[in-house]
Amino acid sequence: MRIEVSLTPALYPYRTIVSRHATVAVDILRATTSICAAFQAGCECVVPLDSLDDLQRYRSLGFALAAERNGERVGDAEYGNSPTAYLRQDMHGVRLAYSTTNGTVAILKGADADLTLVGAFANLTAVTERLCREERDVVVLCSGWKNDFCTEDTLFAGALIERLGATLKGDAATMALTLWQKAKADPYQYCQNAAHVHRLRRIGVEEDIPFAFRTDTCPVVPVYQEGRLVL
Amino acid sequence: MRIEVSLTPALYPYRTIVSRHATVAVDILRATTSICAAFQAGCECVVPLDSLDDLQRYRSLGFALAAERNGERVGDAEYGNSPTAYLRQDMHGVRLAYSTTNGTVAILKGADADLTLVGAFANLTAVTERLCREERDVVVLCSGWKNDFCTEDTLFAGALIERLGATLKGDAATMALTLWQKAKADPYQYCQNAAHVHRLRRIGVEEDIPFAFRTDTCPVVPVYQEGRLVL
Repeated sequence: MRIEVSLTPALYPYRTIVSRHATVAVDILRATTSICAAFQAGCECVVPLDSLDDLQRYRSLGFALAAERNGERVGDAEYGNSPTAYLRQDMHGVRLAYSTTNGTVAILKGADADLTLVGAFANLTAVTERLCREERDVVVLCSGWKNDFCTEDTLFAGALIERLGATLKGDAATMALTLWQKAKADPYQYCQNAAHVHRLRRIGVEEDIPFAFRTDTCPVVPVYQEGRLVL
Repeated sequence: MRIEVSLTPALYPYRTIVSRHATVAVDILRATTSICAAFQAGCECVVPLDSLDDLQRYRSLGFALAAERNGERVGDAEYGNSPTAYLRQDMHGVRLAYSTTNGTVAILKGADADLTLVGAFANLTAVTERLCREERDVVVLCSGWKNDFCTEDTLFAGALIERLGATLKGDAATMALTLWQKAKADPYQYCQNAAHVHRLRRIGVEEDIPFAFRTDTCPVVPVYQEGRLVL
């Protein structure tokens, strides 16, 4: 098993592992953490969307809407992008149409892989176990922030590499593992100066940040199938 | 002074520092190291080109040609992309038209900055001194390998950040400095498993690799002006 890391969605087309692989899309702060939390709270399925315009079409199909831009809930969406908020609700029977600044864009970019999973620290062990059963090469697709590199997604890639013990493919995988080894004693503390941590704090998001770095809070594995994420 | 790092040319359009900045294009193995070496050997000017087709047009204008793809000299070019080979020759009076897999592409991508410089460990101190005089924000544009992240260019970014003591802009700059601090005792040794080091060794390039990690072997600062690099 080999593992490669695309540091932002813009670099995903340039990866070298291109067939029969699993892609793990990650946006630690906060889309993939939140999607895991929504499923953990009982959500039936999540349709990831890149544009806000597409959301409204799902309203008429009986979906609830989750929408975030630049960290904040937008439009008339019932739900935002907060994992701790999802966990405080009963999401059973809810089908979500979900659009965020970075995470859902990354999921869609990775959707053409043979297997596309949603990963976060929240489901790290569950994702690792699923990938071990699959015996496929793995590409970790980091969301970053508007195609800028971000530390927290790269740390997740490093953590997954360490868990899988897979063969590193490319310098980005080596770097991710190096960063993770430096950060893993306390990844939340390590990211205190990360750009997106500052950005979320500026808009008043506090509780979600330490939560997003906690491991195995939501032991679910959302899989992309025919336009939607399901368990 | 702020400093930001674009980890590959594909990410350069997504940087946040976009005006009045200096861009430092870097391809440690080997284009920017080689261009510094060519100037050190007396070369008059270098025209960076992205396509091999454009090279031939410069032949008729009295230019000598330097061309490399995937590490090897191609076509009927007199020169390849080896810094140690340039230093063994007298390049006085020579005008070079230069096309490589990654480095010249990156230089052209950065050419619309107010000031575009060629950087390498070979001219680290000279580039640092020039940037200190300029008092501009700085963007380090790493060439990578076909838009894949590479360790050696990122280490150069970290070394430049350390020298400049500039304010870090974005997580990539933080990561580059972290890697550099881990590697700086022996950056050549640190890169023994880097993808492009393996690639160059496979095609028999040996001498250039340790040379490219040596500091201040070619204390020149090539600057992009009106389509060509000059001192």
